[in-house]
Amino acid sequence: MNKIESPVLGILDAYKASVFAKDVEAFLILYARDVHVFDMWGAWSYVGIGAWREMVVNWFGSLGSDRVVVGFDVIQVVETSNLAFIHAFVTFKGLSGEGVELRAMNNRMTIALQQQGGAWKVVHQHTSAPVNHETLKVMLNR
Amino acid sequence: MNKIESPVLGILDAYKASVFAKDVEAFLILYARDVHVFDMWGAWSYVGIGAWREMVVNWFGSLGSDRVVVGFDVIQVVETSNLAFIHAFVTFKGLSGEGVELRAMNNRMTIALQQQGGAWKVVHQHTSAPVNHETLKVMLNR
Repeated sequence: MNKIESPVLGILDAYKASVFAKDVEAFLILYARDVHVFDMWGAWSYVGIGAWREMVVNWFGSLGSDRVVVGFDVIQVVETSNLAFIHAFVTFKGLSGEGVELRAMNNRMTIALQQQGGAWKVVHQHTSAPVNHETLKVMLNR
Repeated sequence: MNKIESPVLGILDAYKASVFAKDVEAFLILYARDVHVFDMWGAWSYVGIGAWREMVVNWFGSLGSDRVVVGFDVIQVVETSNLAFIHAFVTFKGLSGEGVELRAMNNRMTIALQQQGGAWKVVHQHTSAPVNHETLKVMLNR
C-alpha cells in the first residue's frame, strides 16, 4: 500500500504544470469543491473551492511575467482504492520572464485525495516550513 | 465517509491524555514505527519512531512541573476501512504546577492513520501555523 509509483502521483505533475502555466482552471480542477487547505501564508485555513480560487488568482496575478517552477522530492504515498495521501518536500523557484532564477524556497506538503467521479481530487492540503524556536521566523531553505 | 463521530477520533483523546500526563510511552504507542512527521518547530522532518521519541522526550522533559492541556476544534475526518486522515485546529495551553495558565498557542494539525495489527497508528503527522508574509514570523493565535 506504500507505493512510490502510483497513478495518484499524477496530481504532482498536474500541479507543477498548472503553476508553471499560471493556469487557474487547470490548477483548481485538481481540488474537490469542499477542499480544506492549511496554507503556509497568512491565513489559518481556506474552506471550499471559492476561497481557494481567490488565493490562486491572487498568487498567479502577483507574478507578472515571472514563472514558478515547482519540484517535489522525498515523496511518500499511501493509497487505498478511494483514499490516498502524499507527503513531500517542495521547492518553488521563481524565474524571470527571461528564465533567470530570482529566488527559491522549500516547503513541506501533505495532500489527501479522494476518488470523486472517477478522478482523484485533493480534499485537504497542508503546506508549511519549520519555525525557529528563538526567532519565531520561518525557515525557508532545507 | 466524512464522519465527525468515528473510532479513529480516539487518537485525539489518547494524544491529549498522554501529553497531559507527559507519558512518553503512551504518546509513542499512537505512532507507527516508520512514522514520518513534519513538525512545526526547528526541523524539516522526523523520520522513524526513534527520531520522534527523541523529540517527545525533549518536549516533556523541558516542561518541569508545568502541564500542557491540548484541545482540538474544527475537526474533520475522512476514513476508509484501513486508511484515515484527520485535520483540526489545536490549542496547546501551558499550565503551571498549580494550574495557572502561563501561555496558549494555536496550531493546525493533519494526521494520517493506517490500520496496523488491528489498531490505528499515525503514519504521518503535519503541524504548523501560518506565516506572516511581511515579517516571516509565525502567527501563534487564531
